[in-house]
Formats: sequence, C-alpha cells, structure tokens
Amino acid sequence: MMHWENFVRKVEPYSPGEQPQFDKMIKLNTNENPYPPSPLVCSMIQNMDMDLLRRYPSPSVEPLVGKIAEYFGVKNSNVFVGVGSDDVIAMLFMTFFGSDKPIFFPDITYSFYDVWADMLNIPYEKKPLDKDFLINVDDYKGENGGIIFPNPNAPTGIFMPLDKVEEIIAVNRDIIVIVDEAYIDFGGISAISLIDKYDNLVVTQTFSKSRSLAGMRIGYCIGSEKVIKYLNDVKYSFNSYTMNQCAIMSGVASIEDDEYFKEMCDKVVKTREWVKKELKSLGFEFPDSKSNFIFATHPKIDCVDLFNWLRDERIFVRHFSKPERINNYLRITVGTDDEMRTFINKVKEYIDMR
Amino acid sequence: MMHWENFVRKVEPYSPGEQPQFDKMIKLNTNENPYPPSPLVCSMIQNMDMDLLRRYPSPSVEPLVGKIAEYFGVKNSNVFVGVGSDDVIAMLFMTFFGSDKPIFFPDITYSFYDVWADMLNIPYEKKPLDKDFLINVDDYKGENGGIIFPNPNAPTGIFMPLDKVEEIIAVNRDIIVIVDEAYIDFGGISAISLIDKYDNLVVTQTFSKSRSLAGMRIGYCIGSEKVIKYLNDVKYSFNSYTMNQCAIMSGVASIEDDEYFKEMCDKVVKTREWVKKELKSLGFEFPDSKSNFIFATHPKIDCVDLFNWLRDERIFVRHFSKPERINNYLRITVGTDDEMRTFINKVKEYIDMR
Repeated sequence: MMHWENFVRKVEPYSPGEQPQFDKMIKLNTNENPYPPSPLVCSMIQNMDMDLLRRYPSPSVEPLVGKIAEYFGVKNSNVFVGVGSDDVIAMLFMTFFGSDKPIFFPDITYSFYDVWADMLNIPYEKKPLDKDFLINVDDYKGENGGIIFPNPNAPTGIFMPLDKVEEIIAVNRDIIVIVDEAYIDFGGISAISLIDKYDNLVVTQTFSKSRSLAGMRIGYCIGSEKVIKYLNDVKYSFNSYTMNQCAIMSGVASIEDDEYFKEMCDKVVKTREWVKKELKSLGFEFPDSKSNFIFATHPKIDCVDLFNWLRDERIFVRHFSKPERINNYLRITVGTDDEMRTFINKVKEYIDMR
Repeated sequence: MMHWENFVRKVEPYSPGEQPQFDKMIKLNTNENPYPPSPLVCSMIQNMDMDLLRRYPSPSVEPLVGKIAEYFGVKNSNVFVGVGSDDVIAMLFMTFFGSDKPIFFPDITYSFYDVWADMLNIPYEKKPLDKDFLINVDDYKGENGGIIFPNPNAPTGIFMPLDKVEEIIAVNRDIIVIVDEAYIDFGGISAISLIDKYDNLVVTQTFSKSRSLAGMRIGYCIGSEKVIKYLNDVKYSFNSYTMNQCAIMSGVASIEDDEYFKEMCDKVVKTREWVKKELKSLGFEFPDSKSNFIFATHPKIDCVDLFNWLRDERIFVRHFSKPERINNYLRITVGTDDEMRTFINKVKEYIDMR
C-alpha cells in the first residue's frame, strides 16, 4: 500500500506577506487603512452581550446580510458573506469554475488567483496587460471556463470604466464573471448596478480596506439570486458557521456609520492625490491609481535598492519580483498624511544621497 | 456552448439546524454550553486595542497557536487552528483524503462527514455501529483512503477507550486517521498523547462546546509536524487570514482561565449524571454519554410526538429521522440545573397526560 503522503493535495506552499512587528514603523506594504474603524464598531464590540458567544451564530449571517442588502438596494438573497473576500472568492472558484476550459485573468493582478486555480486543479490562462497596464477587453472574448479580474486592478490601481466591464460580462453570458472590487471605494464605480441585468456576474467587495476592518475578516459578494443560492449550497457543505458574532456585529456597525466611512475614504483619496504630485515631482512614474495604493517606478532608481533602504528606515512598502515587467516597481499603500510626509522625505533623502 | 449552470459544483443542499429565536425558551438542541465564556474572555474583548482591527491578523494565528501548544505540551508546529472544527475538518478532508479508496466512518455519527465527502467527491463507506451503538474496531481494518470518527461519538455520546482508538490508528499507518474530539472535555480521554507515536493521527477539538465559544468559531487540530505542514500549505492556498483578532484574543483568554474551564465542565458533567438518573426513573433508555448531551429513547413513548410537544412548550431538543434505527431517539443537550429541572418536569407532565 502507498503511504499517506502520496495522497496529499499538492500545492505550491504560499507564504503570506511580511507582517513586521516594530513599535515604530510606517507600514505601507499590505494596503491596510491608516485610520481606525468607526467608533460605532468599537462601541458595538465593547457593549456586546457576551452571553451570545456561547451560542452558534446565524448561519445565514444575519443581521449583516440584511444590512449589506439594504445598503446596496438589493435583496438578502443577492448577498453572500464570507471570512474576507479571499474566502468568498475561494468559494466562488469551488462553486463555479468546474468546466474543463481555462479560466481567464490578467497576468499582472492579485497574486492569489493562480494559487486558487492550482489548488483546485482549475486550468487557467493569464491575459497580458497592455503596455500601459490596461486590460485588453478583446482578450476575454475567447472560449473559457470563467473570468476574474480586480477593478481597480492590483497592483496597478487602474480602474476600468464600467462600459468595458459590461462588455466582458455581456459576451460571456455562459460563464461566471467575477469582478473583484476590493479597492472600489477609493474612486471607482461598482459593477453592482449590473447584477439585475446579468445573472452571470458576481461582484466581490471587502471590509478590509475601505472599512478599516482587515483584522475582522469580512468579505461579501453580490450577484443574482441563482448565483447566491448555488454559492450558499457549497458554503453549507463546507462550514455552516463561518462568521463569528464579533464579525457580524462589527460589520453591521460599520455600515450604519456611513458618514465616517465616506469621510475616511475621502481622506485616503486626498492623501493619495497629494502623494502622486510629490512622487511625480521626484521623477517617479505610475499609473493613475483609483485605489489606496500607488504603483510607482523611477527611470533612474533601482527600486529594489530603494525598497531595502526604506526597510532599514522601518518604512515598509511592497515589491513584486515577478513578472519581470514590474520588478522595478514599488506598491506604496496610502497612509496618513504624517506617514506619507515622512515617506516622501525619506525618498528625497535617498535620491539626494545617490 | 453550455450554460454556466452546467458547471456548478453539485451538492445536496444542506440545511443548518434550527436556531429558534424566542426570549423565553430552553434550547437543548445544538449542544451549546449553558454557561457563558470565562470572564477573562469578556474583558479581553472589551479591552481590545481597537486599532488592531484595521490590520491583518497573524496568518499563523499567533498567539493562539502558541497558547494551545503550551496547554497540551506540544510544539507550535503540531497545532493548526481554524474557523470552528468544521473548518479544520473540511481542510483535513481536502488535504488528505485524495486517494481513490473509500474513507470509513460510522453509519451513526456527525452528519457532516458525508456532506464533505460528497462535496469533495471523496468515496466513502459507512460502518454500522453494533447493537449497543459501539464502533466495531475490526470494521476499520480493511483497505481505505482515510478514517474519521468522533470520540465520544455523536449523537450517541459513547466514549471509545483509548486502546481501541490506538488499535485503529496502528493498523492504518498508511492513511490519515482523524479523531474528532468535539466532546472530549466532558469525561473522555484525548488521543493527543498518541501524536508522537503516530504521524498518521490527527486529533480535532473545538472551543464551541466545553469553552462556551460556539459564537466565536474556533477549532483546532493537533498532529505530527508533517501533517500540520501539509495542512497549512492547503490553508494558505485557500485563505491565509481565517481567524479574526477577536477570535484569536478570545481563544487565548479562554485557555488562560483554566480554572473556570474545568469548573464549567464539571458542572455540565454533574448535571448530566443527575439528568441520567431522572430519565432512567421515567423509563428512558440511553447509552452512557460522556458528552454534553444524552441520546435517549423510551420503549413506550413516540419520541417524535414528545419532541413536538416539547417544542410547543418552547423546549427545543434534537431529533434525527435517519437512519431508521435512531428515529425514536432524542438528543438532549445538557443545560443548567434549572433548565433541566423544567425539562424533566415537562417530560413527566407529558408522560402523565398519556
């Protein structure tokens, strides 16, 4: 008989990103929000009825599903909630990407799509972004088993106008198209308005970035009732109770404080636009980001060297070594004004030293 | 081209158990703990640094993994934590049950094993319990692709002595054996002591029952470093950040308050033994449960009728219609002394009425 190791699911061991732990550091490497969650979230947690914790939470993730539905003007049956949008997307891959045709996604994009496809033995084809890092809509018109792309795309930050998104959805009515809107709240326009028109569309969003709740693990998707029903069937066959009481309550409170949410998004956007100007004046080049990060390169700077130098100064940004096209780029999360001022000053210092 | 619905993962839509919502009810249907979590858990949540929430949590689930390891005297690399033991077991099925041979589990057991197997297209064979609801060890000696059973078993509550558990593990060195110890803290003896001896053993446990944290979704397993490494590889390919900050902190606090934990377990056990006596004097028959529930039948009572009558009185217990052998049984979760007194009195009232 063969040993049990022969039957282990073979995956490329994925290493999660660096989470440096220093008292004094500027952390611009994982697209976290620099502002705390709404005070309403904090008081909701602090005043929670602790006796609730001994009971199983709502398997249908009430009242959070209802709150999200209300917020977007859709029905509860159009909403699915999971443990971060990673959980939601993993479930979507498991549920819908079961044909033997390859799924399509951009070659420069969220690095988890091929990890999920590999783990679930889903064939895939990466479609190269054009020279300006734009998605070429025509690339997504061939026969395929499903489509996923972020909008705005990561790590470029580029937002694709809704008419182009719709073009991709419209020519692919026979497969599921997932629009991953993790960064939509920083200046993009959501495709949620299209779900009534296209039952093959699923839009995923997250509380991790714009709602400052990365630590609470809340993601969701919105789609046709049919799509959500299939997704729930698989979820209930995997783990019925995924969202804990704190996550459910926090999510509800976050949505209830819409004023704070919008204010914080505006602040991040304002800082981002200011940082763009500063970087430009220093000779950096970057696509026009509509997210909470800037993906920048410099014709005269070795960005890996800058990355390491900043690291020694306890300023953490993100560098991707692959694909080669982007290996002289840095992805810089937008922090507070103070953090970004320090960052810009340090970059100036680095340039002056060269 | 085929429509996208043709490629949806086909699952038997699973309906999660009833979660009645009444102000005044006695809920003895989902094996929740009648006592609140440790006061240390509550204060840990109330005093949490809310700024933590905007950051991603530790992907390696620190410091909870360290606390669990310390508690059981194993290394961090022997511990895997997930969103309830359902999440842990789903990951174990995905990671290790990949041969084409059937996995084995009892015919009367936790109703989720066949759901996972069906969803993941894993072949399985159910091994009938004997006439006293005992697992027949010899049934688990044939060629197979993996083994899972709860100890104590659910819904019978019967604990299998450790030498028999070891016999199953020892003759199956070439496949993974999962011992699901969701109810172990109410009088059983854990197989964790065997993990050094058998690298094919995985023991799963949960904070949902004995630690009164069903609402927080924390489960874990302990196994050889090799097993845990493979499991983490798959987890990191599925969702790197599953445990939110509240869950991590609550888990740590729960383990730190060992005195409270033991006191609450003792209380449940004491109540259970008293309820057994009461039920026996009313003519009920039941296996000798070492869990926080009693699986009882009565030679002269239609238990479905009793179930419905209790339901109208807002006392909720659990009934399983399948398999036929157990369709005149009720699974009664052990509540507080007060709750169980009311329950017993109501059952007496029912019997007197007949």
